[in-house]
Amino acid sequence: MSVTPEPGSPISELFKEAFGHHPAGVAIITADSEEGPVGLTASSVTSISASPAILGFSLAAQRGSAVHVAEAETFLVHLLDAENVQLARTFATHGAPRFDESMNWETLPTGEPLLTDVRRVLRCRPLTKAQAGPALVFTAEVLEATRHDLSGTPLVYHRRTFHSLGEGTYVI
Amino acid sequence: MSVTPEPGSPISELFKEAFGHHPAGVAIITADSEEGPVGLTASSVTSISASPAILGFSLAAQRGSAVHVAEAETFLVHLLDAENVQLARTFATHGAPRFDESMNWETLPTGEPLLTDVRRVLRCRPLTKAQAGPALVFTAEVLEATRHDLSGTPLVYHRRTFHSLGEGTYVI
Repeated sequence: MSVTPEPGSPISELFKEAFGHHPAGVAIITADSEEGPVGLTASSVTSISASPAILGFSLAAQRGSAVHVAEAETFLVHLLDAENVQLARTFATHGAPRFDESMNWETLPTGEPLLTDVRRVLRCRPLTKAQAGPALVFTAEVLEATRHDLSGTPLVYHRRTFHSLGEGTYVI
Repeated sequence: MSVTPEPGSPISELFKEAFGHHPAGVAIITADSEEGPVGLTASSVTSISASPAILGFSLAAQRGSAVHVAEAETFLVHLLDAENVQLARTFATHGAPRFDESMNWETLPTGEPLLTDVRRVLRCRPLTKAQAGPALVFTAEVLEATRHDLSGTPLVYHRRTFHSLGEGTYVI
């Protein structure tokens, strides 16, 4: 049942469908920039190495906030729980109001904007950047755990929908 | 509540705890090698770009199978469903029997070992490799969808446990 690229079903469409069905955790990456605080929702954040502490993610470099995050010397990776789903939606929506008075955030002494409703936040600096097609692939060294609270309900993104990994989830 | 590295609580431990709470999809990457078919379970596979179709993942390079996957000219990325959880465990367990008669697999004409119980499989070739601490970070071009079946129940890895994203999951 191999499916090869065809005019009506190019590999890009198959790829999008396949990864649309692949569950992922959700994060928001924020940074300071010359235009003020910026941030974006990312489902590509993964652990690369614990010792030294290194994480990875990719950015679609053409997006506004992504350009600023890509240029930042340090940034904050917020690992989201289900309680943060509205933040996930806001930072995934082009033009949605961010870092205004309705949002709980503060500027750290080191300059990065911290979303204070998020329980686990890692302050990072870029280690490597690689171009891959139109995207930028980052690895980043974790400098400190700005927040570290393991309570909260896991948040999963799957088929363009946010899911809460709650009591109804079947552990197998 | 910033948590900085301390002797009793180094950043590596905080990092492991934080990512232990970050849900992830599960994949198995297989390749042919001079020692025969090899494979490993990975929770780091992410979509990087749909057009061109590029995915990313990282390997702890010191592991046996990872060395062979890292050297392969092409490999198969199997995106697992909950129905594949036993495969996920087998390929995450050092020394567990693999590619024997009890496992449903076949060799593709292109040489890679295909796990035929997995619904979505992408055949790939490496695009970039970057060293990040002790790990290797890969990007790979997707050559074809070897299998493409969107049925199946999503599989999520969280806190060292496999979860099925079933009907009981709360959509938010």
